[in-house]
Amino acid sequence: MKYLSWGLIGGGEGSQIGGTHRIAAQLDGKFCLKAGALDIDRDSGKAFAQRLGIAADRAYGDWREMLEAEKNREDRLDLVTIATPNNSHYEIAKAFLQEGFDVLCEKPLTTTVEQAREIVVLAENRGRICAVNYGYSGYPMVRQCRAMVARGDLGKIRVVVAEFAHGHHADESQADNPRIKWRYDPAQAGVSSVLADAGIHALHLACFTTGQEVSSLAADFASTVEGRQLEDDALLAFRMSGGAVGRLWTSAVAVGRAHGLTIAVYGGKGGLRWQQEQPNQLLWSPVNGATVTLERAASDLEQESLSASRAPIGHPEGFFEAFGNVYVGLAEALLARQSGRKERNAVLHYPTADDGFRSVAAVHAAAQSAGLGGIWVDAVSGKALS
Amino acid sequence: MKYLSWGLIGGGEGSQIGGTHRIAAQLDGKFCLKAGALDIDRDSGKAFAQRLGIAADRAYGDWREMLEAEKNREDRLDLVTIATPNNSHYEIAKAFLQEGFDVLCEKPLTTTVEQAREIVVLAENRGRICAVNYGYSGYPMVRQCRAMVARGDLGKIRVVVAEFAHGHHADESQADNPRIKWRYDPAQAGVSSVLADAGIHALHLACFTTGQEVSSLAADFASTVEGRQLEDDALLAFRMSGGAVGRLWTSAVAVGRAHGLTIAVYGGKGGLRWQQEQPNQLLWSPVNGATVTLERAASDLEQESLSASRAPIGHPEGFFEAFGNVYVGLAEALLARQSGRKERNAVLHYPTADDGFRSVAAVHAAAQSAGLGGIWVDAVSGKALS
Amino acid sequence: MKYLSWGLIGGGEGSQIGGTHRIAAQLDGKFCLKAGALDIDRDSGKAFAQRLGIAADRAYGDWREMLEAEKNREDRLDLVTIATPNNSHYEIAKAFLQEGFDVLCEKPLTTTVEQAREIVVLAENRGRICAVNYGYSGYPMVRQCRAMVARGDLGKIRVVVAEFAHGHHADESQADNPRIKWRYDPAQAGVSSVLADAGIHALHLACFTTGQEVSSLAADFASTVEGRQLEDDALLAFRMSGGAVGRLWTSAVAVGRAHGLTIAVYGGKGGLRWQQEQPNQLLWSPVNGATVTLERAASDLEQESLSASRAPIGHPEGFFEAFGNVYVGLAEALLARQSGRKERNAVLHYPTADDGFRSVAAVHAAAQSAGLGGIWVDAVSGKALS
Amino acid sequence: MKYLSWGLIGGGEGSQIGGTHRIAAQLDGKFCLKAGALDIDRDSGKAFAQRLGIAADRAYGDWREMLEAEKNREDRLDLVTIATPNNSHYEIAKAFLQEGFDVLCEKPLTTTVEQAREIVVLAENRGRICAVNYGYSGYPMVRQCRAMVARGDLGKIRVVVAEFAHGHHADESQADNPRIKWRYDPAQAGVSSVLADAGIHALHLACFTTGQEVSSLAADFASTVEGRQLEDDALLAFRMSGGAVGRLWTSAVAVGRAHGLTIAVYGGKGGLRWQQEQPNQLLWSPVNGATVTLERAASDLEQESLSASRAPIGHPEGFFEAFGNVYVGLAEALLARQSGRKERNAVLHYPTADDGFRSVAAVHAAAQSAGLGGIWVDAVSGKALS
Repeated sequence: MKYLSWGLIGGGEGSQIGGTHRIAAQLDGKFCLKAGALDIDRDSGKAFAQRLGIAADRAYGDWREMLEAEKNREDRLDLVTIATPNNSHYEIAKAFLQEGFDVLCEKPLTTTVEQAREIVVLAENRGRICAVNYGYSGYPMVRQCRAMVARGDLGKIRVVVAEFAHGHHADESQADNPRIKWRYDPAQAGVSSVLADAGIHALHLACFTTGQEVSSLAADFASTVEGRQLEDDALLAFRMSGGAVGRLWTSAVAVGRAHGLTIAVYGGKGGLRWQQEQPNQLLWSPVNGATVTLERAASDLEQESLSASRAPIGHPEGFFEAFGNVYVGLAEALLARQSGRKERNAVLHYPTADDGFRSVAAVHAAAQSAGLGGIWVDAVSGKALS
Repeated sequence: MKYLSWGLIGGGEGSQIGGTHRIAAQLDGKFCLKAGALDIDRDSGKAFAQRLGIAADRAYGDWREMLEAEKNREDRLDLVTIATPNNSHYEIAKAFLQEGFDVLCEKPLTTTVEQAREIVVLAENRGRICAVNYGYSGYPMVRQCRAMVARGDLGKIRVVVAEFAHGHHADESQADNPRIKWRYDPAQAGVSSVLADAGIHALHLACFTTGQEVSSLAADFASTVEGRQLEDDALLAFRMSGGAVGRLWTSAVAVGRAHGLTIAVYGGKGGLRWQQEQPNQLLWSPVNGATVTLERAASDLEQESLSASRAPIGHPEGFFEAFGNVYVGLAEALLARQSGRKERNAVLHYPTADDGFRSVAAVHAAAQSAGLGGIWVDAVSGKALS
Repeated sequence: MKYLSWGLIGGGEGSQIGGTHRIAAQLDGKFCLKAGALDIDRDSGKAFAQRLGIAADRAYGDWREMLEAEKNREDRLDLVTIATPNNSHYEIAKAFLQEGFDVLCEKPLTTTVEQAREIVVLAENRGRICAVNYGYSGYPMVRQCRAMVARGDLGKIRVVVAEFAHGHHADESQADNPRIKWRYDPAQAGVSSVLADAGIHALHLACFTTGQEVSSLAADFASTVEGRQLEDDALLAFRMSGGAVGRLWTSAVAVGRAHGLTIAVYGGKGGLRWQQEQPNQLLWSPVNGATVTLERAASDLEQESLSASRAPIGHPEGFFEAFGNVYVGLAEALLARQSGRKERNAVLHYPTADDGFRSVAAVHAAAQSAGLGGIWVDAVSGKALS
Repeated sequence: MKYLSWGLIGGGEGSQIGGTHRIAAQLDGKFCLKAGALDIDRDSGKAFAQRLGIAADRAYGDWREMLEAEKNREDRLDLVTIATPNNSHYEIAKAFLQEGFDVLCEKPLTTTVEQAREIVVLAENRGRICAVNYGYSGYPMVRQCRAMVARGDLGKIRVVVAEFAHGHHADESQADNPRIKWRYDPAQAGVSSVLADAGIHALHLACFTTGQEVSSLAADFASTVEGRQLEDDALLAFRMSGGAVGRLWTSAVAVGRAHGLTIAVYGGKGGLRWQQEQPNQLLWSPVNGATVTLERAASDLEQESLSASRAPIGHPEGFFEAFGNVYVGLAEALLARQSGRKERNAVLHYPTADDGFRSVAAVHAAAQSAGLGGIWVDAVSGKALS
């Protein structure tokens, strides 16, 4: 066992996402933070990096400086995480991939569909990993759901219902708070707000759990707070590649929902329901049977779920452990490649650039549909269907 | 206090809906069953009526016989409930209203929009009550929700999320069971299946709790079980007369949801959430505050809710008491009219023919929208909106 | 089918328990209220009785008057319910039983053990029913629990955990409210307060669900609000006739528990858990398996539970329906005796005088134990066990 | 910021507790594992230590070897965690404390009361920390509970109800499994099984949340599976130093309870309820008010709770983060002492040797009481109270 060396871009002092990545990456003793360009303010970033234990010569003022220095080191970073503002993801990911680094990029992968496609191709051409942090897919019971669907326990999947509702942008008195306001400014946030920010996770779970992709969709966007130019509430109907019917609701004004990400999958033989806020349970309802509460770490769960668990049954795991599982999957893939052995890819998942691309495309397609009065569009190209 | 005399059409022995009406109507000692035409089989109906304590001369073989005999009696029925198959509602309601009876009709009021409109006008012209049994609006915590919205506790309503999901038609091996199959046959069920049967209750609650009407909508219908010609899963986006944005999902293939009727109302000052299967609690989330569990019969609830409660806090009330509240509201209206006093209409609600008409129209509009690729239509006329 | 004629003593206007009995008895159309002595105030009682539809000549000023008049009628009351203050139960029940009436007495059956024993013997000698209203045993899922235990699904019962906690006497500023104060006055309430009032229901459920009786017990009584002479919080350890170990906590100062009656039964093959506030679900946990949520009215439940259900799965039933099931059981027993047929006693339960006697004895034994420093005592005689 | 250097004794490969300590200690980047004697098998322990990144010269064959080598190093370990079998805690803790190390010992601190008292005195005399891992006290909402009680939100505490029920020893077919059997063998497990193993955590929470100590108690022990010499189910009544009344139930045969640790505190002004399996919520019920669900990381929580939180509201934290908070508290204390500054002891808690001593004493007292027929005993000395 060796520690993989890890670099972080963005995630400066006080940032939530930076702290999350540091806990998630180091939780299992698989990665060790060795280099970083952590802050938009050069000096703050360097100072903070050193307080985190990064050597002075690997505490950088910005990502370009980091790239220049790191690309020539013998003790190369095994993985670089990009946790900067959304509109910089493309440029940074591209630059590091081009120099042969493996990358984990925060979502959304990019802000345009074309950029996302380019990153997918680039990573493939260079033979590098470009993962995207749909970290909720790391929850053990989400993986149990995926495994049960894959094994056929639910029969043919008929309907997927995904939801990500919160109320953090409901307070009108905070609408001009810069930390909220930019999210509804098309110049900064792009074509979509709550769907791109929150709903995209629900959409990813719909794909992850069913193993199907979104093929077409129709959307309704609503701005419920005066002055917002982008949607703070959206509804999507969609169809998936394997025939499943999809329903997705996402909202930023659902007061009382703290972080309401849920997924339900209904098939001909049974249904499964899961909610992020109580993530250690998965409800399994076989057709004509009573509902069973599956508990994380129960001995008869699928290996795909058990391999993502650390604590025994009844000892709750949470958000950090879920995100940590993305790093576990990456560590496995990196170590497998380094040692030339086969990756145990089947059970140690991490979301890929392709997931990132498809999600970005679906968000753009939804914005397209909503703008055209809710007509059905292709989920990748955004083109109107007959 | 006097018992109001009550007649029942349909609801023969073994029928669920008949038993429900008998319990709901008689629960509070306000109505007493005095006449009935209970069964499609004349003799069974008459025999059953007498076993229920109806006098032999008021136990009828069919509704026409009942109408002929009852219309000339001095001790007229105060209320006639129609609990027959859907396609007979129009004819029976019309006939009884024309003779000056007050009527409670099972939902849907009629099978066509035109018939529904006709009933509304007829009841108005004759000065008779034509109520429609959206009985879930009788739950005390649904009424608490309505009262809090009306009082402005939630501020301006932004989003309403209604759901009615069950899995009772999910079992493919039962798809040809006649009790299920007819529901997906347009010749018998009309333009819609699960929306007309289940989702319509959720739609009514969206209107009842907000005091707004559905003005426009866009729908997606899906048939997920082979051979079905009508939808067993539907998604609606809608807009309401007071500016609220609506989302509605209904399904008959959601395995594991027993009777999943829920309503959530989100406004600028707070949100409320309720689910039918745990009806004694209402979750209240003020903006920036913690979620509070309001309990039925708590002393600080609104009068509108308390007047619909019978048992003290912590002693659960259920489905029969909710439906009973529709009868309580009708008794109040009938007694008020009989005694020439003002009806305390504000708090003792019952759903009216107008509610019935609007619901039927919305279902037809949704079918129209779904058939046209999900475009937005007027919720009353079903006409495409540019 | 005929209506059984029913008389009520106590339960005047505005009393909660009176309204409950009227709804519960008449819910299913089995009993019809024909006579009553409803109030301590003669005139109020007679007036209220007539407003409830009782004929003037059967609206009595007090129970003695009622007994005198009713005992000679040809159309005798089939059942008399006693819902008067506790200390009058004995005298009234005795008087009516002696004249050959069947009786349903509110709990506690009597205020002393000797009186309770006398009633048991009297009812037996006269061949009359003396039921006691442990109405929570009427919940369909409590009966499911009993049936599963009886069938052996849980194996040998090891531990029973019963609880009845509420917080309605927690507010110190209300301690002198007469409606609360008398409960802590030994002169009025006897040897026990919260155990006799609330915990006794939990104790009954422990017996009802397991089919075992309490054989010995040790108790701790605490008075947590200054000035109270009787306990407002109690803990019992007990042993049952079939070897089960018992734990019971009851409290009147558990702020936040509205009506917290729960029962859990753990055996060698599985465990069951139920709580009164969500009465339509029963949690079933087989050894080494996941927990299953059994839903009232699911088609594979035991007949004992299904026969106590009225509404389909997912349509909640509550408190009134549970109490109504006691009346259903009584109706069955009365009709069976009247028609000379065998009573279907196995599934249509009602709690008997013997249940009432044992409960009263156990409460007295617990007071005895608590007074002697928590030593173990015989649950019937209250005598110290060596 | 510097990493504190950390040593681990016990917790070899595959042990659950070892993995838990490694995650908990390193989660926040405060401790770095530098030395260890991890396994009863010398070679396995040394090999595993090196796989974990410990230098070869600090990977020891046993704890004596570790103590000898480490006590003379300049770069002394800042903390040594003892995660060995219970009966070795005393000897190892004593040896390391005597050489001036700070220690975190797994619970129970020792197997006898005398040993525990000796450790308390020794730590005090040497001026060293001896913490005991009652890790559940690290949950942010447990700390919120403590803070609200301390601030007086609940008024005078009347009743504390603590519970730790699981069903992991219910399967009779596993009774002879050595991993279970030793727990019921007095020679190996001492005077108590489930109370010493599980219930002790509930007892600690009762003390931690109220700030009171257990002063007297009465206990009932039951062995419900044939052949067991120690209790697998126990009930305790107790009284606390501040006047609170206590109730505690613990069980190892409660099938369906996975890891059922709960605490409820009821005072004159309100009540609080928390359960370990859904640890991010705390139910707060003010007298005469509705129940409020407090969510971890809500901005208006007490600093004592917020300082124990890492993720935003709605992103669940779990077991590892709770245990990690014990390490956070220790890091703060160690760093404060090293830098000569005042420790922010008020909010960054860790359970102390005194907590460990009192718990061990209470377990022995309970065994004493149970053996004497449930009489009340002093919770420290175990002596019978008149």
